[in-house]
Amino acid sequence: MIECSVCHSKIEPPASKSISRAYDKHRTFVSSKNRFLNVILVAGDCLLVGFQPILVYMSKVDGGFKYSPISVNFLIEVAKVIFAVVMLLFQSRHKKVGEKSLLSVSALVQAARNNVLLAVPALLYAINNYLKFIMQLYFNPATVKMLSNLKVLVIAILLKMIMKRKFSILQWEALALLLIGISINQLRSLPEGASSFGLPVATGAYLYTLIFVTVPSLASVFNEYALKSQFESSIYHQNLFLYGYGAMFNFLAILGIAIFKGPSSLDILQGHSKATMLLICNNAAQGILSSFFFKYADTILKKYSSTIATIFTGIASAVLFGHTLTINFVLGISVVIISMHQFFSSYSKVKDEQRSGNFKMVESIDSQRSRDASFPNKTDVSENPPC
Amino acid sequence: MIECSVCHSKIEPPASKSISRAYDKHRTFVSSKNRFLNVILVAGDCLLVGFQPILVYMSKVDGGFKYSPISVNFLIEVAKVIFAVVMLLFQSRHKKVGEKSLLSVSALVQAARNNVLLAVPALLYAINNYLKFIMQLYFNPATVKMLSNLKVLVIAILLKMIMKRKFSILQWEALALLLIGISINQLRSLPEGASSFGLPVATGAYLYTLIFVTVPSLASVFNEYALKSQFESSIYHQNLFLYGYGAMFNFLAILGIAIFKGPSSLDILQGHSKATMLLICNNAAQGILSSFFFKYADTILKKYSSTIATIFTGIASAVLFGHTLTINFVLGISVVIISMHQFFSSYSKVKDEQRSGNFKMVESIDSQRSRDASFPNKTDVSENPPC
Repeated sequence: MIECSVCHSKIEPPASKSISRAYDKHRTFVSSKNRFLNVILVAGDCLLVGFQPILVYMSKVDGGFKYSPISVNFLIEVAKVIFAVVMLLFQSRHKKVGEKSLLSVSALVQAARNNVLLAVPALLYAINNYLKFIMQLYFNPATVKMLSNLKVLVIAILLKMIMKRKFSILQWEALALLLIGISINQLRSLPEGASSFGLPVATGAYLYTLIFVTVPSLASVFNEYALKSQFESSIYHQNLFLYGYGAMFNFLAILGIAIFKGPSSLDILQGHSKATMLLICNNAAQGILSSFFFKYADTILKKYSSTIATIFTGIASAVLFGHTLTINFVLGISVVIISMHQFFSSYSKVKDEQRSGNFKMVESIDSQRSRDASFPNKTDVSENPPC
Repeated sequence: MIECSVCHSKIEPPASKSISRAYDKHRTFVSSKNRFLNVILVAGDCLLVGFQPILVYMSKVDGGFKYSPISVNFLIEVAKVIFAVVMLLFQSRHKKVGEKSLLSVSALVQAARNNVLLAVPALLYAINNYLKFIMQLYFNPATVKMLSNLKVLVIAILLKMIMKRKFSILQWEALALLLIGISINQLRSLPEGASSFGLPVATGAYLYTLIFVTVPSLASVFNEYALKSQFESSIYHQNLFLYGYGAMFNFLAILGIAIFKGPSSLDILQGHSKATMLLICNNAAQGILSSFFFKYADTILKKYSSTIATIFTGIASAVLFGHTLTINFVLGISVVIISMHQFFSSYSKVKDEQRSGNFKMVESIDSQRSRDASFPNKTDVSENPPC
């Protein structure tokens, strides 16, 4: 405890500055400028996620998919690279006088050198795409969905570890509530008689679950870290390299499969239609949007955004197709809404604000004293540590 | 905003004193002395609620009950009156020298006059006992159980209205979470195929629901109000009158039924066994314990206590009888535990404490100034409104 030099009240010392510079810089940026961007991001995400089931429905031929699921990931990455290139071209055409072109060789080389870290999330995402298929061999889809919810907590733990981000107890509780809320909502989609549903008990299953939950979480958090740590890089440069690496890793996998299974798997456009192309574009747009989330907002907001999208889709399908809202849906979204309010409310940040409030007050008094020439202890004050 | 006379920082003015005196007095009392009593109350409640299903099981003859359900309420009230009389006798035997006997005519008349308000909750409880039977004609037991959960919110609203009790947004959210948590847990006990369970839509049903939820909530809150507003009355006096009125109202109902259905319903002991007598004693003890809850703690703690009891019963039956814990139970109690932490945590009271903290600081500085004779502005300070 430090004593205030003004009114002699005890004040807690400032928290040690262990928060990563990348995150700190970002936080100031968000709170001052980007509230509006957050709303746009969430709205865009909801729209894209909302269209997904319609496009999936349109892509089905005779109740199934004709295309190879492995090719889809590659095509999505390529679509994202094309988008990044188009945006870079657009930026270089409309650049202001004196502004450096993002497409100049020197700029690209510099950006490539700075953003080499993006290869890590790109590799993790590529691994995750294959893990998804493996998981479905061990668990039924409802269980996979349920286990996916654990990602919220794993992401928070990783954010704490990698990004040195701090969460209040209330925010941890809010994240637990988010996890519970989503799970309640999903309980209705479980098959009948599965209400006494338990987690799988096989030892192997635990290991697979751990990997299945950790890899994509690690990918998101590393992505956030890589994008934010090079905050001055253009996001289109960053997208270009992130998705370039992604396309590369997916292409390597396709090559690998071609070696084992024969060259037929190289025909990546086989079985695709206009609808599947739209689905790929939708997925690519979701991917690009999430890079904006990671750079200008954060992984947690992305998770909440997906949940809001689920809620809107549920309500919209109830209104449009006359489905009844189940009690699980109502209870689940109530928990999620409370969780969201608690996570983002000022309650959860009270301690931080209170502390910085104290400091501001003392600072302003100190600066007042400095201005006041007749103040006798001026030198004393500047020698004292600030409260 | 008021400016502090010491350091010129802006401070919010004190909240208007609209909180009922009865509640205020109680709150100070609880926070200083009765934390331990709260633990005892909750533990006792859990024990009694835990024994209930065992006694119900023992009371059954050929899978049903032989006694008239109307007689049970009367016998429970009589048991509680007997307990109050025994406690009064015990107190008057062991009273210290100079202490007034609680059984003297003057003390009883005085207490009766002061606690006449207890007739209101007694009447409401009696009405509620009959409503319970009527409700079961309109709804199935699972629905009744589900609707009962709404009481938590109704009680909070009534506490706000009648007791002028203040809840923070976080506490409202915690109460909503309690409601949701209990509901999630109960979803598993719904009959199969009822997962798309909706609320009953008949207009009459809404009215019955409103009455079914409001009457017992009103009874509890009025009870808390009546017990606390005469805080200096002995709780044994208050119990005597509360349950005396209760016995009277129930007896009037039995008389009324006897007039319509013939004198056989006057035989209130018909069909009772030792086990049913134990069940009656258990219920009476629960009733007496709740009067301690209402006087020394509050209705909300009573609600949380019942929920803790449900959780313990669930876990105990899983451990003792090898039941598997359902995912609904796990999700439900997680929500309830988070709710409990949020309701009683310091987070939810931050605003109040912060404010009173400021005042304490300023007060101590002021008192320091008053002691300091050389302080020049002493009269100014006493003329200024306190920060």
